[in-house]
Amino acid sequence: MSPPVQPASPESVVPAVDAASPAVREFDDFYRGISALGADPATTIEQLRDGFSRWGDFGRDPERVDYVHVDAGGVPALWAVPEGAALDRVLVCSHGGGYACGSIYSHRKLYAHLARAVGCRALLVDYRLAPEHVHPAQVEDLVAVYRWLLEDQAIAAGRIALTGDSAGGALCLSPLLRARELGLPMPAAILPLSPWIELEALDPIHETNDRDLIGTRDVVISSAEVFLGPAGDPRDPLAAPIYADLHGFPPMYIQVGGCENFVADARTLARRAQEAGVEVRLDVYADMQHVFQLLAGAAPEADDAIARLAAWVRPRLGLA
Amino acid sequence: MSPPVQPASPESVVPAVDAASPAVREFDDFYRGISALGADPATTIEQLRDGFSRWGDFGRDPERVDYVHVDAGGVPALWAVPEGAALDRVLVCSHGGGYACGSIYSHRKLYAHLARAVGCRALLVDYRLAPEHVHPAQVEDLVAVYRWLLEDQAIAAGRIALTGDSAGGALCLSPLLRARELGLPMPAAILPLSPWIELEALDPIHETNDRDLIGTRDVVISSAEVFLGPAGDPRDPLAAPIYADLHGFPPMYIQVGGCENFVADARTLARRAQEAGVEVRLDVYADMQHVFQLLAGAAPEADDAIARLAAWVRPRLGLA
Repeated sequence: MSPPVQPASPESVVPAVDAASPAVREFDDFYRGISALGADPATTIEQLRDGFSRWGDFGRDPERVDYVHVDAGGVPALWAVPEGAALDRVLVCSHGGGYACGSIYSHRKLYAHLARAVGCRALLVDYRLAPEHVHPAQVEDLVAVYRWLLEDQAIAAGRIALTGDSAGGALCLSPLLRARELGLPMPAAILPLSPWIELEALDPIHETNDRDLIGTRDVVISSAEVFLGPAGDPRDPLAAPIYADLHGFPPMYIQVGGCENFVADARTLARRAQEAGVEVRLDVYADMQHVFQLLAGAAPEADDAIARLAAWVRPRLGLA
Repeated sequence: MSPPVQPASPESVVPAVDAASPAVREFDDFYRGISALGADPATTIEQLRDGFSRWGDFGRDPERVDYVHVDAGGVPALWAVPEGAALDRVLVCSHGGGYACGSIYSHRKLYAHLARAVGCRALLVDYRLAPEHVHPAQVEDLVAVYRWLLEDQAIAAGRIALTGDSAGGALCLSPLLRARELGLPMPAAILPLSPWIELEALDPIHETNDRDLIGTRDVVISSAEVFLGPAGDPRDPLAAPIYADLHGFPPMYIQVGGCENFVADARTLARRAQEAGVEVRLDVYADMQHVFQLLAGAAPEADDAIARLAAWVRPRLGLA
């Protein structure tokens, strides 16, 4: 008997072009400021949201993109429609911010850049935020939007991809658990960016890695408390999709910054996807921080990441 | 015989809330950088445009505004449509940048804030830029857009106001000279912000004021050369509307920063408007730089300026 074939690793490392470029340093400084703000017990949720509202200020505005607000099955959302986009293909985009901060505005540029690179529309979801709305309100909102696209907008599941960053990266995964229960078809692909999928910071990387400017154990645990509320279970797969059963999931392309503690969970997710028979790719961008793709238009690493996401997802959406 | 009645001065000074706030200082630093870039003879027009593309980065994104690109009578333009806006009232908005830089994107936030405050749509005009297109291409584009609104979109002239900043401030005035020749009706009002209306820097303020970080004599004269081209006349009223015959012009509300050399030309414009029987108001914002309204959402002076513009123009557009 031959030994079991070890599957090829889905992981690649992408070297930085210039990890000390002005745009990257500005973004690092933003995270230092936000971390200090978040660590101060006197900071209110409104102050934190105001701080995070500048998260997308380090990328550049893509040109020739229309933005139109829409009620997407009861959930407010924003269409980003690049000039010449295929209207029958949709990227569903969930912004990050610990389920409590960030917005369709802070992440408008990032997902508009991605939609333009793909050549389709993006739908940025203005899901309900914690602590006013705790888990699973966010998952329910994403399921409602997905159902609206399928049933109201008559977009075929095979022409929809889900993407999102940080908490929004989890919102590429958890709604599919619910969709599967509901008998809804799977989308064509999912693209989680720096996904936040584990709520207790259990991986030892939290002790050994000192380069992550934002995703520290303290931040993970305090954000999880806000998101879950007092009754929440941090090992509920719907809240912490690192525990999800991924059988039957669509192809998955994960990107994560090499400085991040979330690299460890991304590797675990990739391995578990592979074990469940899911096609998976993981690119680790060396020396980059959490959701470095927000530097789209301002840093070559972000532009490269967006180009790779687009090149990967286009054929899966049936675009040449 | 009694002496002739001196008309009341149309000018007010608005004190700064905090001329050293972080947002104001960031904006000042931007102007210092742009001025250094512009003064370097090795700088290309592409580099200058790239620098100016960040002009609007110091303001905040207004929420609940749709943006839709449109062909406005052959001229590309961008609708900014705030939630709940009156669709039959339009602000025509011309961005600044010496007729050679700036864009509908750099000025998107500013005019979206203004449209939201007024409660109507804004139409940002992507007019042709110098040096590829010299005067009067810009004036012709604005006339084409105005005519398109009147004739194609069936918007009444009395429901249209023109606004713009810097070079775009002149584009509130010069197209009306052409419109008058063509027998088109005048719009309800015009709102020039820090208008650039004189091309030779003749006013002695250019020698005495040392607080303007961008509108220096050298910049005025070199920008005028680019805008006019080799055959242009710097005293053509269509290019330098400080020389325009303002009889029959609509009510005019000028705002200008107190640090600006353009204060002098704004005063001359206000005086000439008054002499021509035009209702005119001039607010000088103490300690502010050129087009400080771009700090909308980030500095109280800019928010105040936008609130005053909106309060002034709403009744003139027939909005309660």
